[in-house]
Amino acid sequence: MAETDDQTLTDAQDDPIEEDVELDQPRLRQIREAVEAGDGETLAHLLEPLHGADVADLLEQLDDGPRRRLIALWPHGIDGEILSELDESLREEVLAALPPEDVVEAVRELDTDDVVDLIENLEDASQAGVILDALEAVDRVAVEQALGFPEYSAGRLMQREVVIAPSFWTVGQAINHLRGADDLPEQFYHVILVDPRMRPVGYVTLGKILSSARETPLAEIEEESFRTFYATDPESEVAYAFNQYHLISAAVVDADDRLLGVITIDDAMAVLDEEAEEDILRLAGVDSEGSLSDRVLGTVRRRFPWLAVNLLTAILASVVISQFEGVITEIVALAVLMPIVASMGGNAGTQSLTVAVRALATRDLTGANVWRVIRREVLAGGINGVAFAVIMAVVGLLWFGSPMLGLVIAVAMVINLVVAGLAGVGIPVILQKIGVDPALASGAFVTTVTDVVGFFAFLGLAALWLL
Amino acid sequence: MAETDDQTLTDAQDDPIEEDVELDQPRLRQIREAVEAGDGETLAHLLEPLHGADVADLLEQLDDGPRRRLIALWPHGIDGEILSELDESLREEVLAALPPEDVVEAVRELDTDDVVDLIENLEDASQAGVILDALEAVDRVAVEQALGFPEYSAGRLMQREVVIAPSFWTVGQAINHLRGADDLPEQFYHVILVDPRMRPVGYVTLGKILSSARETPLAEIEEESFRTFYATDPESEVAYAFNQYHLISAAVVDADDRLLGVITIDDAMAVLDEEAEEDILRLAGVDSEGSLSDRVLGTVRRRFPWLAVNLLTAILASVVISQFEGVITEIVALAVLMPIVASMGGNAGTQSLTVAVRALATRDLTGANVWRVIRREVLAGGINGVAFAVIMAVVGLLWFGSPMLGLVIAVAMVINLVVAGLAGVGIPVILQKIGVDPALASGAFVTTVTDVVGFFAFLGLAALWLL
Repeated sequence: MAETDDQTLTDAQDDPIEEDVELDQPRLRQIREAVEAGDGETLAHLLEPLHGADVADLLEQLDDGPRRRLIALWPHGIDGEILSELDESLREEVLAALPPEDVVEAVRELDTDDVVDLIENLEDASQAGVILDALEAVDRVAVEQALGFPEYSAGRLMQREVVIAPSFWTVGQAINHLRGADDLPEQFYHVILVDPRMRPVGYVTLGKILSSARETPLAEIEEESFRTFYATDPESEVAYAFNQYHLISAAVVDADDRLLGVITIDDAMAVLDEEAEEDILRLAGVDSEGSLSDRVLGTVRRRFPWLAVNLLTAILASVVISQFEGVITEIVALAVLMPIVASMGGNAGTQSLTVAVRALATRDLTGANVWRVIRREVLAGGINGVAFAVIMAVVGLLWFGSPMLGLVIAVAMVINLVVAGLAGVGIPVILQKIGVDPALASGAFVTTVTDVVGFFAFLGLAALWLL
Repeated sequence: MAETDDQTLTDAQDDPIEEDVELDQPRLRQIREAVEAGDGETLAHLLEPLHGADVADLLEQLDDGPRRRLIALWPHGIDGEILSELDESLREEVLAALPPEDVVEAVRELDTDDVVDLIENLEDASQAGVILDALEAVDRVAVEQALGFPEYSAGRLMQREVVIAPSFWTVGQAINHLRGADDLPEQFYHVILVDPRMRPVGYVTLGKILSSARETPLAEIEEESFRTFYATDPESEVAYAFNQYHLISAAVVDADDRLLGVITIDDAMAVLDEEAEEDILRLAGVDSEGSLSDRVLGTVRRRFPWLAVNLLTAILASVVISQFEGVITEIVALAVLMPIVASMGGNAGTQSLTVAVRALATRDLTGANVWRVIRREVLAGGINGVAFAVIMAVVGLLWFGSPMLGLVIAVAMVINLVVAGLAGVGIPVILQKIGVDPALASGAFVTTVTDVVGFFAFLGLAALWLL
């Protein structure tokens, strides 16, 4: 971030450039000190220049005690921006701590889409009520209508503040209209062209409007690519389209194709971000609802199910091993070496799995190339399998001086890495086909397969060749 | 995506609304058929309406043969947009397949930042040369200057096409200037205000310009929050700021704070997307340079190093086991049960690790809360550990009828899950401190710790209590 002297220069023009202040360690320390000292004045002086997103991060990072003290020491400080940036797990607590009049004021600043985002996950219905009552009638209707759409739908994501123009207008008419308008949204990049029945027929970028002569018809300068979404479309589809087609904003329509609102790139990108996040966490078996501000028990509850699934798969593997107790007592070296084959398979499988899950999420893995990808993963598994088979054969030979043992682990390694490649791609693809999120469930299946196959191949071959 | 009849309506106004056509299965099949039939006319008819990003995906999904045939059958079809959407691993091949004049035409359509992105990773220098020569002198200078900045820097990300105005101008002057300008960028959302020395001092959104009276001074309607980046700032920093502060575009300046270019939200979000992608893949031990269109050998090479690391850790675990060969030959049940403790630890560790790595990436995990998070993960590990300890004690008892064996596995379970929580957060935090990407290396360390501790605790306690 460039701390330029332009900025002092703009300060002179009383541009509140302090917005550019960031939440760095020294400031963080000063804030903590001010909170401990109960020095509200210093605290306000330290917090005011911060961006709402940074204040929200700060509140999330503080322990419960200091957080409560900070809120108490900073009356009327928490505004709408901070609330909408705040992690869901903390919103209720903070809302509860605020005097109603502050909540009212805070909420009125927000665009309808932010209000929807703010209240859609409040468990405490009374809080949602307070917020709805705080809104002006027209906004309340808009918010309530948005809440009527399914969760994670375009209807929840869109903002109602739209800038429209009849498709037959000229640039001049549009500019005059905009100059007259008093209820323009915070940010807007396009004017949506509508037909007499309020159906969007195209859009014009503000850049084009500004760079065209007043008499130019809007229809003449409208963008080529124009995409609309139904309010009921899943937000994931919206996010994909924004990312794929580099959309800046898109119109949302009802079942009759009438304009309901607009979705802007920042909202779409937030969804894209959440989905990548969700994939990362789910692949590791962490409930994606979790957050860093969770309490211990919440964390325990979130982690337990996946660990329970893993316990079952581990016990399954143990059952496989127990079938070979005889061989193991004969040759204890097997017990020493057997985790290697399973663990290599598990890692190779996870590699293929992760690539496949992401490719499915970004729609790069489709019916068109699924077989090529499976072939590739299996081949790659086989080749790496051979490489590590040779290495392990040598290790087994040197370590336990038994060529046959080396052969056993080598063959088992090849088998398991081929299976890993096959399962790594095949399982997520199948789950996707039957409508289960591959990121959520694949991991358990793949490691089960590689564990079972790994132990069975290694111990089974040992039983055949070494006894 | 809403297929509204507005669109037929706008078709009537010869708006090439076919852009809204998507690459669905039927169309994909028709395209494959046309390629096989060598029917260039049908092929062109099928491809032209598609968005460049979809054509790029199509090329990525086709096998080598069909892809070459398609390019041959569709002369002059590949444009700049398709090239810049194309996966890096295919760009060289496609560029090589195109007649030079097509490359020239394609490249000229692109903004400088897209050209930079297009050529910065070309291994074949001659191709880069062809592209640079294709550019008009001024663009070539811009691209070459951008390439002078370090990879993954703001300088590489920015586009040179900027819209500026002296900070003392009025809305009217700005509009007149824009109407006169002939070299405006494809997309722009802001006018950047500069001082006489070309240093950015603020910016005005087009929305504000359009909705203000002509005589309004631009300085009066400039945005409150204004952020600039140095061309040498890492792109990750830029992406973070865009996401954190909901920026739409930001100015990039040189060491003397003079305006060099502008970064827009879509570029910043692409970076954010890549970084999440990178984390996902690295956590699974997949080289993030990889892509779905890689060949088998590329994949093998990319997967090998991580598997090699994992082999070392697996062998380390085996060494630990080998210390207890005596106990295992005495009680073969240990060999049966020992993978359970290690595997549970590995999974719990991966959960904590993933949460920590993401929290570090999104800067939610800082010095301010690191101890609270570690405390939470360790406690959560301990509590889950006790829960699964009880379960496994029962399983061990029922399965092998030995209460002591149940006790051994129970205690080992608690120990390993506590260690998993500690290592899962501690290791990435330490790696971050010493400047190693936590996503890249943490996994190997954490599973090594949980494997070694798991086997050692289980077999060690068994040696103490069961013999």
